[in-house]
Amino acid sequence: MFSVVEQLPAAEALLRTERCRAILRRLVPEADGVLVTAPVRIYYFSGTLGNGVLWLPLEGEPVLLLRKGLDRARLESPLARIFGFRSYKELPALCREAGSPLGKTPAVDKQGFSWSMADMLQERLPDRRFVSGDAVLERVRACKSEWELRKLRLCGKRHHRCLYEELPRRIRPGMTERDIAVELWNVFLHAGHSGPLRLGKPGEELFLGYVSAGINGLYPTNFDGPLGVRGAHPAAPYGGDAGSVWKPGEPLSVDAAFALEGYMTDKTQIYWSGPVPEAARRAHELCADVQQEAAQSLRPGVRPSDIWKRALDRVARAGYAETFMGFGPERVGFLGHGIGLVMNEYPVVAPRFDEPLESGMVLALEPKIALPGVGMVGVENTFEVTEQGGCSLTGEGREIIEIK
Amino acid sequence: MFSVVEQLPAAEALLRTERCRAILRRLVPEADGVLVTAPVRIYYFSGTLGNGVLWLPLEGEPVLLLRKGLDRARLESPLARIFGFRSYKELPALCREAGSPLGKTPAVDKQGFSWSMADMLQERLPDRRFVSGDAVLERVRACKSEWELRKLRLCGKRHHRCLYEELPRRIRPGMTERDIAVELWNVFLHAGHSGPLRLGKPGEELFLGYVSAGINGLYPTNFDGPLGVRGAHPAAPYGGDAGSVWKPGEPLSVDAAFALEGYMTDKTQIYWSGPVPEAARRAHELCADVQQEAAQSLRPGVRPSDIWKRALDRVARAGYAETFMGFGPERVGFLGHGIGLVMNEYPVVAPRFDEPLESGMVLALEPKIALPGVGMVGVENTFEVTEQGGCSLTGEGREIIEIK
Repeated sequence: MFSVVEQLPAAEALLRTERCRAILRRLVPEADGVLVTAPVRIYYFSGTLGNGVLWLPLEGEPVLLLRKGLDRARLESPLARIFGFRSYKELPALCREAGSPLGKTPAVDKQGFSWSMADMLQERLPDRRFVSGDAVLERVRACKSEWELRKLRLCGKRHHRCLYEELPRRIRPGMTERDIAVELWNVFLHAGHSGPLRLGKPGEELFLGYVSAGINGLYPTNFDGPLGVRGAHPAAPYGGDAGSVWKPGEPLSVDAAFALEGYMTDKTQIYWSGPVPEAARRAHELCADVQQEAAQSLRPGVRPSDIWKRALDRVARAGYAETFMGFGPERVGFLGHGIGLVMNEYPVVAPRFDEPLESGMVLALEPKIALPGVGMVGVENTFEVTEQGGCSLTGEGREIIEIK
Repeated sequence: MFSVVEQLPAAEALLRTERCRAILRRLVPEADGVLVTAPVRIYYFSGTLGNGVLWLPLEGEPVLLLRKGLDRARLESPLARIFGFRSYKELPALCREAGSPLGKTPAVDKQGFSWSMADMLQERLPDRRFVSGDAVLERVRACKSEWELRKLRLCGKRHHRCLYEELPRRIRPGMTERDIAVELWNVFLHAGHSGPLRLGKPGEELFLGYVSAGINGLYPTNFDGPLGVRGAHPAAPYGGDAGSVWKPGEPLSVDAAFALEGYMTDKTQIYWSGPVPEAARRAHELCADVQQEAAQSLRPGVRPSDIWKRALDRVARAGYAETFMGFGPERVGFLGHGIGLVMNEYPVVAPRFDEPLESGMVLALEPKIALPGVGMVGVENTFEVTEQGGCSLTGEGREIIEIK
């Protein structure tokens, strides 16, 4: 009766399961498997945004147990073992009957379970010892398969066209941030943007993107990113504010992820109303150079922490240490982040991320510099890690786009 | 340097704090206060989407402790005690210094903390006994203040205009669901829709709304709602699907919440390409009648569980028991839900919700009936509970809108 837009290929699901097992054996050798509950994590392994849990044992078939959407899951997922359940108490019997017993020491998706769900799970299954599987679940998605890279490349191509070609034709000084945000959303929607923008930690959220005119690019933000934003309202600090006009002589900073079939790329583009002042151009070009140097280091074997350190050294030598990656106390301590099904994936280009990069990782690099009293300049693009260095998925132009 | 779009009035924050204390004393008498972490829950008490925790003691001032966005919080919040922190270990000292010591038995926002955050909190503060504050935090937002009701009324008025007046002028049979969704989004954006659509439980998400043509309204969904949706992709089962055309003779079911300054109303409107067949009209009118009868019961003192039971009895007598509130195993067991800062708030119009309604509660009522082989009909509007019965915030029209 119903057909599906696209089913996750069975080979792709198997590849992901095998990769997860290998990382689990290395990082949590005492665990019997991983119990996953965050819908996006269930999606990664099953192809469906399951409302329930997925048991991925070290040996045997994965078992997807759902509270709702059983028929949908059977349409969307290549997994063979999909059943309904009502209480966590049923998990051991259902997994056993499916031929994949729930072990005594399951690693769990501790970022996906709320504390209240954790209480319930432990109460219903008191004889299990639950250990954290978060480090495994973060790492497993870091290296993208060829299937995923094809989606990310298409996503990045459209993203580039939206911010670099389409939006500049539709905006002009005198528009409010809100007007510009509505144009941005239309450009995105016509390019197939399908949202939502998923973030990794509970409570994190975004709505379309950041649109910041002039010093609003320095407005303090709760979000863990360098660009400031005033946004529509304290309850919705995203998009543009209807009361802020983009004035002549000001920068307009647009930082907005684009989503296609679940995958996202991240990109920032600075526009300027009129000619760019020399001081702003210098700071912006430093960001472009920092991004280029960092991108050249996006090769297997390089440590993200070293890339961060080199960028910071270069910026400090140029005299921008105090305004790099944010303004005042709002500065953030990273240069970039993994991205894929979630906007802030493993690894981060930041101190302590010492495990070497691998081929097929995808990272956004976003050097930005705050210009006190002016606004925010800088660049962001999304790169694929290759033997030849980072390959930009979101285009090549690095300049500020001047709008008359 | 920076101004704020709107600050939560101090009197409003105080009212909410006092209401929370009264409910806490009644439901969790052993607790010394509530420790909140979900940003939307922090927002409710402080006026800022804080990235950190809020300690709301039984006595003394609330203390807002943030990992980031301190300057933003000080702009947005009327609270006097706002500080930065880095580790949960610092919480007792910071609260004590602020004059509001963290008690030995804090009630906590167990729905807002992830299991990994809970592990960390308990490890850093081993001498505290944490009890669940979820029931308190669900109930405290149920009754809206006059300040909140003003926002919800404005939200509902615009919402009605979007779905009842604007969208019908822009859609016609032959358009794809995706084209219709893009029109819907534009109508919403031009009316000031500011997103995001917040849901209560971890992993729950929406992106704009559901747009379902014909039998796609019966497509199984992972979401806990009656209307089916195929959506853009398994990774983004929202909005409309680019491959599904709204054909002559078919219903088009649009279920989309509208957001304004953090507050949301919920509404469903059915359109039909051409004249509505008699069987569909009969089922739809039953939904309209069920909604009207239920709305008349939205008075202080009435039990939501009784409203659900009466609706179910009426539908069963009319012969629709098997197709009410969804299709086959996808049927859901509720008639409506509270709504405000979050789309699925307390209370639910469903079995076991036996605490009587109170003035100022706001609920969406959404009776829907599946027509096998055809699609979904029904109505949804958002109501304020008053002494005179439910007052619709999202308009009065209940009919299917015919589109030539």
